Amino acid sequence: MVIMEELDKFREECGLIGIWNNKEAANLAYLGIFAQQHRGQEGAGVAAFRHNGETTHSLHKGFGLVQEVFSDFDFAKLPGESAIGHVRYTTAGGHRLANVQPFFADINCGGLAVAHNGNLVNADPLRQELIEEGAIFSATSDTEVFLHLLARSPLNVPLIERVINSLKRVQGAYSLLMLFDDRLLAVRDPNGLRPLCMGQLDDTVVFASETCAFDLIGARYVRDVEPGEIIEVTGKNSIKSYFPFGHAKESPCIFEYIYFARPDSSVFGRNVYMVRKRLGAELAKEHPVKADYVVPVPDSGLTAAVGYSQASGIPLEMGLIRNHYVGRTFIEPKQSIRDFGVKIKLNANADVLAGKSIVVVDDSIVRGTTSRKLVKMLRDAGAREVHMRISSPPTTDPCYYGIDTPIKDELIAARQSTDEIAKFIMVDSLAYLSMDGMYRAVQSTQGKFCDACFSGKYPIGAPVDYEERQKPLFKVV
Amino acid sequence: MVIMEELDKFREECGLIGIWNNKEAANLAYLGIFAQQHRGQEGAGVAAFRHNGETTHSLHKGFGLVQEVFSDFDFAKLPGESAIGHVRYTTAGGHRLANVQPFFADINCGGLAVAHNGNLVNADPLRQELIEEGAIFSATSDTEVFLHLLARSPLNVPLIERVINSLKRVQGAYSLLMLFDDRLLAVRDPNGLRPLCMGQLDDTVVFASETCAFDLIGARYVRDVEPGEIIEVTGKNSIKSYFPFGHAKESPCIFEYIYFARPDSSVFGRNVYMVRKRLGAELAKEHPVKADYVVPVPDSGLTAAVGYSQASGIPLEMGLIRNHYVGRTFIEPKQSIRDFGVKIKLNANADVLAGKSIVVVDDSIVRGTTSRKLVKMLRDAGAREVHMRISSPPTTDPCYYGIDTPIKDELIAARQSTDEIAKFIMVDSLAYLSMDGMYRAVQSTQGKFCDACFSGKYPIGAPVDYEERQKPLFKVV
Amino acid sequence: MVIMEELDKFREECGLIGIWNNKEAANLAYLGIFAQQHRGQEGAGVAAFRHNGETTHSLHKGFGLVQEVFSDFDFAKLPGESAIGHVRYTTAGGHRLANVQPFFADINCGGLAVAHNGNLVNADPLRQELIEEGAIFSATSDTEVFLHLLARSPLNVPLIERVINSLKRVQGAYSLLMLFDDRLLAVRDPNGLRPLCMGQLDDTVVFASETCAFDLIGARYVRDVEPGEIIEVTGKNSIKSYFPFGHAKESPCIFEYIYFARPDSSVFGRNVYMVRKRLGAELAKEHPVKADYVVPVPDSGLTAAVGYSQASGIPLEMGLIRNHYVGRTFIEPKQSIRDFGVKIKLNANADVLAGKSIVVVDDSIVRGTTSRKLVKMLRDAGAREVHMRISSPPTTDPCYYGIDTPIKDELIAARQSTDEIAKFIMVDSLAYLSMDGMYRAVQSTQGKFCDACFSGKYPIGAPVDYEERQKPLFKVV
Amino acid sequence: MVIMEELDKFREECGLIGIWNNKEAANLAYLGIFAQQHRGQEGAGVAAFRHNGETTHSLHKGFGLVQEVFSDFDFAKLPGESAIGHVRYTTAGGHRLANVQPFFADINCGGLAVAHNGNLVNADPLRQELIEEGAIFSATSDTEVFLHLLARSPLNVPLIERVINSLKRVQGAYSLLMLFDDRLLAVRDPNGLRPLCMGQLDDTVVFASETCAFDLIGARYVRDVEPGEIIEVTGKNSIKSYFPFGHAKESPCIFEYIYFARPDSSVFGRNVYMVRKRLGAELAKEHPVKADYVVPVPDSGLTAAVGYSQASGIPLEMGLIRNHYVGRTFIEPKQSIRDFGVKIKLNANADVLAGKSIVVVDDSIVRGTTSRKLVKMLRDAGAREVHMRISSPPTTDPCYYGIDTPIKDELIAARQSTDEIAKFIMVDSLAYLSMDGMYRAVQSTQGKFCDACFSGKYPIGAPVDYEERQKPLFKVV
Repeated sequence: MVIMEELDKFREECGLIGIWNNKEAANLAYLGIFAQQHRGQEGAGVAAFRHNGETTHSLHKGFGLVQEVFSDFDFAKLPGESAIGHVRYTTAGGHRLANVQPFFADINCGGLAVAHNGNLVNADPLRQELIEEGAIFSATSDTEVFLHLLARSPLNVPLIERVINSLKRVQGAYSLLMLFDDRLLAVRDPNGLRPLCMGQLDDTVVFASETCAFDLIGARYVRDVEPGEIIEVTGKNSIKSYFPFGHAKESPCIFEYIYFARPDSSVFGRNVYMVRKRLGAELAKEHPVKADYVVPVPDSGLTAAVGYSQASGIPLEMGLIRNHYVGRTFIEPKQSIRDFGVKIKLNANADVLAGKSIVVVDDSIVRGTTSRKLVKMLRDAGAREVHMRISSPPTTDPCYYGIDTPIKDELIAARQSTDEIAKFIMVDSLAYLSMDGMYRAVQSTQGKFCDACFSGKYPIGAPVDYEERQKPLFKVV
Repeated sequence: MVIMEELDKFREECGLIGIWNNKEAANLAYLGIFAQQHRGQEGAGVAAFRHNGETTHSLHKGFGLVQEVFSDFDFAKLPGESAIGHVRYTTAGGHRLANVQPFFADINCGGLAVAHNGNLVNADPLRQELIEEGAIFSATSDTEVFLHLLARSPLNVPLIERVINSLKRVQGAYSLLMLFDDRLLAVRDPNGLRPLCMGQLDDTVVFASETCAFDLIGARYVRDVEPGEIIEVTGKNSIKSYFPFGHAKESPCIFEYIYFARPDSSVFGRNVYMVRKRLGAELAKEHPVKADYVVPVPDSGLTAAVGYSQASGIPLEMGLIRNHYVGRTFIEPKQSIRDFGVKIKLNANADVLAGKSIVVVDDSIVRGTTSRKLVKMLRDAGAREVHMRISSPPTTDPCYYGIDTPIKDELIAARQSTDEIAKFIMVDSLAYLSMDGMYRAVQSTQGKFCDACFSGKYPIGAPVDYEERQKPLFKVV
Repeated sequence: MVIMEELDKFREECGLIGIWNNKEAANLAYLGIFAQQHRGQEGAGVAAFRHNGETTHSLHKGFGLVQEVFSDFDFAKLPGESAIGHVRYTTAGGHRLANVQPFFADINCGGLAVAHNGNLVNADPLRQELIEEGAIFSATSDTEVFLHLLARSPLNVPLIERVINSLKRVQGAYSLLMLFDDRLLAVRDPNGLRPLCMGQLDDTVVFASETCAFDLIGARYVRDVEPGEIIEVTGKNSIKSYFPFGHAKESPCIFEYIYFARPDSSVFGRNVYMVRKRLGAELAKEHPVKADYVVPVPDSGLTAAVGYSQASGIPLEMGLIRNHYVGRTFIEPKQSIRDFGVKIKLNANADVLAGKSIVVVDDSIVRGTTSRKLVKMLRDAGAREVHMRISSPPTTDPCYYGIDTPIKDELIAARQSTDEIAKFIMVDSLAYLSMDGMYRAVQSTQGKFCDACFSGKYPIGAPVDYEERQKPLFKVV
Repeated sequence: MVIMEELDKFREECGLIGIWNNKEAANLAYLGIFAQQHRGQEGAGVAAFRHNGETTHSLHKGFGLVQEVFSDFDFAKLPGESAIGHVRYTTAGGHRLANVQPFFADINCGGLAVAHNGNLVNADPLRQELIEEGAIFSATSDTEVFLHLLARSPLNVPLIERVINSLKRVQGAYSLLMLFDDRLLAVRDPNGLRPLCMGQLDDTVVFASETCAFDLIGARYVRDVEPGEIIEVTGKNSIKSYFPFGHAKESPCIFEYIYFARPDSSVFGRNVYMVRKRLGAELAKEHPVKADYVVPVPDSGLTAAVGYSQASGIPLEMGLIRNHYVGRTFIEPKQSIRDFGVKIKLNANADVLAGKSIVVVDDSIVRGTTSRKLVKMLRDAGAREVHMRISSPPTTDPCYYGIDTPIKDELIAARQSTDEIAKFIMVDSLAYLSMDGMYRAVQSTQGKFCDACFSGKYPIGAPVDYEERQKPLFKVV
């Protein structure tokens, strides 16, 4: 059996949705996470609170795609006017249902449901400290820390101050939805590393990681939750905004544009498709090549390839075709089928490629093994010359802020020069977009975004004890 | 659809198994809870700790029978030399996976897995107090209280003292297994309400609620954990015993003999089959009746019926036959089939019964509705006279110590005299075993056991705020 | 993993139910096969025909217990006023859904559903002949032969004659329900080898293998379908009877009394419990022994043990307790647990057995391996003397008429004397009931029943090419 | 709950794979149908025959995607050197497992497995005739007819002649794989309506509906099975070719190029991507329009849009984005979300579309309802002008030859003029490719293909009694 991993990509770890003041809150939350399924396929969940009449809290979560978790689900089981939802990335390692969000706890201010996108850098010392104080952790994710900090914060101040006091103790990346018995809070860390935006659907306030969730449920994008902001929604959509962390230097994640976000979404105020096309156009300007066709690696390279094609005038051709029915595992014959892992997802169209010189456009190269197989497949299909163009700089450093990346040693660009990589993946030429080019495409300037995976410059440092925290505390099997 | 409830019985709520120092600890724990499946069919779980080499903690649990939860399970996923297991009763109400045991937490002394049989009477105030102090509860069962108390207990004393200090705060019924990184504790509350016994299999120390678990895995019964005792097993089975609660008046649950325990088990030092047969014999002496046959209500009434038959000289006949393939739900035709709920489980054998006078022996009457249907079925099958004999006194009061019973109002014997009940269930005569008779059969004296369900005398009182705690804090759907 | 086979028993292969003229025909058929679940656990199915308004045919079948196959089933999907149902035995070998009954075919007289209990002795030559004539077989069971014979029978005669002409070509054991668009036929082969009886529920005609099905649905037993009889039900229960096979010597299967049928059923006109008790009583008379207790092997030996106990005056004690939650597979620890396969089902009660001399009563010994383990378990539990008494003669020959038996070589009584078997199973004494004793218990005389498994006298011979037909034609995996 | 139908498209009904002479035949067949999953998602199956040593036949099939049917499958259960596989389209109506292919039967020449793509026009009279002759049908599909015809064909001629004699009786569309104990036959009907091609992988002969199956398993395309040809493979790939039907006018299905086949496949000797791009180019020439962008309807319109863009010089932009995680059903909030059914699959990117004039390229319009919703979505996203261009002529007539199409009345182009359709779907302009244009793109001439869905000219007529045969003979529920 062959396990099909995504084609050598970084992986987004989470997507969020929040709904306030809607009779069908849970159903809308479900659709909101369905639209953001690309942000996590390990698990999904929705928590709903009923505020009118007797307060109730209900929660449904499970492993798998949103569709699987909510197959035949009866939303009458998630009653109430508010709901938050979450999708989570599927790691290669062990499943732990306790880690699937939202989290719920009965704490000293009533019920609390939390959904979190991001990773903290001081989760481990905080966790250790909390455990020493007698806190009990049942999951291994950072998110539980928020619950404990709040549960243990002094009671003699208003709830919003307790939340602020708790958040002041955490460092790292967090876009956060916190649903209480009487309010919904949407929070972005002071650096604004992970996205979170606010929308409106009639009398309903909506939050989501990406605007594509708003499109599906018919909501209108209003604005981003700003870095360091806490938005508090109460009653009939009374909205208050807090900036309790003073003035931080914001640094949203630039990789959302490169690969993670859906092209039809807007994140950090820019349409992803438009940025991605400009990435391709900048790439064409920086690294032109004489070729017959521009061939995208579907689907992630398609938009940049459109940009490259338009900027270069080289026609776009779909020389690689994707099988859209690919699942997680395959039973491979023992007699080796060459490059099976890639073939099961992509097929090279020999009638397009035979005898042609092509520019293959992809968004990134992580380990390089998939690119190598891909190039081999293109050559077997008759491509005369294969030039690889990557619509981002070399990925040299792991992410600590909510993205699943290999460790530095496994990143090919951390160990090898572009020439060496070109040789390894067997292309006639290879070029990456420059940092400047990337920032031009994003229409910003260096330093305005977190680009640590390209630069190694971590705006809020690396986590304490990073290796150690990869170990699960306990395993549910 | 008709939901098949057990035939109007009290229900045991849990069964425990603990294994220390065995390479196949988890596998043995699985067999140990399989043997005790009658003590709970809602959910099952096993937690295993590896102590040799790098410490690991793993846990597998789920809804359903042991066989379902561990279907095709690979025990390599539960490595280690120690394990505890738990089965839990299926309540009519909502399932909550968080409630299925064992519980695991990472606390300030390392990993901790807990399995609990019983109910606390001060769980609610303790829980409220802990929540106010900032504890987070994720399940609705009492058991979580133990984890929090221990996690929050002062650290400046040895672990065993911390456990003792924690336990001193709880009141109620608890047989408890606590698995730590370096020891396994087996605890019985000072009253010894619920059973727990210790066994040995070569170099392995074993704990179980009932000895039938020892029989299946080939272990030898050593002795009961005594009321108020903490047994601590460390290293290569170094065993220490503590009695930290001073001298309490013990009061084990007499109903274990009446109905709960498997007849081939020993609990509280007596073989259940032998006690149950004596219950039948005492019943025959106290309430003789001239009849053709003694007919047991299978399977619960069988052993007492054997005793009644032997003591009375009236031959035993299987006038009621049980269908052994009964599941949880049935699709009933709309046109009423009379007494469907009983018929699906039991059938009266007309060839045995026609024209005969019979003594029907059952262990208890809870609501009376099933007995009424049963008697009707026996009469329809031609029984000339039906005399009902119950091998325990009238059940007049609910249990607060770990048994699932209806509220007092639903207990027919709480509202009606024996004569009235006889009329309701339409028998020619009805008699219950007396309290004295019951104690004779148990070979003990009144006051030595908890008989609150018959007497209303609760050795440790009723829980604070009993009604309130029946409400779930939140619902996982 | 250990696969739990039933404790070394012959296995009944099928149970039938037929319902005519009831608005809830399919629902009643489902209950009818549920009541007969002991006659087959491999697969189950119900076919329903609607005769009023537009004729419809529908079918639902699947692997597993009736409860599993019909879990959450909506009986609106099986509309109509008539239905037949079937349960089938679970063989150790490959599952073939095509073999699960009822069978349905669209043939030249309309729709036809067939359910069959029994085995033909000329199925292979018939099948070969039919295949040569161009028939297509999609299952491997005998039952398909009936469909082909009828489909190919000359059309120029009334349907009932076509059925008769078809049946005249088959030889063997068959109790048969055939549901047509305008009638329901119930058939027993001329020897009447397998049971089939007729009942009535208000205006509804019912057929079942055993009367316990009638009891559950509230139907009244009317009479057996007689050997060689075809009962035809049409319209509002117009009933016609045909005896087209002349006068055959009937020979119903005596083993139905020994083990197969439920004790609360009547088959061949006798109540099974009463016969089984007499088997025990005859056994006591023929083979008395001085002992402390009679101990039944539950559940199959219970009734005979009651008979033995009453006839001998030796008290009955439940020295073996059955675990009622046993499923199909177990994960056994590698370190051998002795006699695991037996222990998982039965446990010896040492408190009953220690130091006692016991008579163990069982219905039969097939291979002897289970008996050997059982005896060892009893001795380990302290039994001083173990005397085994079997309530039937030695089983020396396989069945060809619808019962799943090992081949002759695997039957211990075919190879060894009673003394040798006693030695092998390690009992102090062993005795079987005599043929005469068995017939006395059945209140009949030798020759009136098929007793081939005890005598080797096959009333209709062995099948042509028996070994060959054990091979599946094709395998669905 | 909303059931997601494919976006108003015709649906291919089947895909075939055949493997001869390979030790991993079944595993390769599985991969071959996986690659052709787009040709049918209702059910899948593989039959394998072992020819070396003892002949065995095995079959595994089930409902769902290939991945679901073969999840965790152990291919040791499908032993042998030859195999055929099949995928089947999911109809809206009832599932019938009996209809999932391959079919297997034990007939008078040994085992036979059949997989079929196409529909017969004389299936009903043939079926009726066969039933009258005594044949038993257990499925409702045409395919069973082949089995019966062969089973009943006179035996006194060689097998290949029996096959030919049988095939001479059927009329309609059939690409057929027939696996015997000693040979594999690949057949295309005289008109060659459905595709079937032959490939080679070392010593293995392979057949598939589309060449993309060859690419995945590493086989080389050799040639198409020709219309009216029977290819017989025996032994170590001895290949014989028969043309028993005389000289027929071939008419392969032109719609394979429009929509069905994967773009990386070759069918009928042409690469689908190249044809589809030319369809777009011809469309641009015939129906130019002044616009800012060409916007494909993903994924089906993408290739034609590339062609349109290149031919017109108007830049291609991905103004519609597809969600790749779409399943079969959704739970829709009651409060209407506008155009929910389309939105769940596609989202319009407002940042691309706002204020722009666009040419939307799609392959066909069936009912028009989806197009209408799509256009509305584009306008809501700000598109100033929407011009729809369809890369095929208006679909005015249903298909009877193996494609699932609505009845004529439901085809919008059968009832309305292009202007009326334009108004209905609310576009600024609408144009279809002409018949001439289509044939130019295919590089052929009118009459050389079946274009009945555009022209109403059926090369082999409509089926007898078409409406009647839509009714299932019986229902398996």
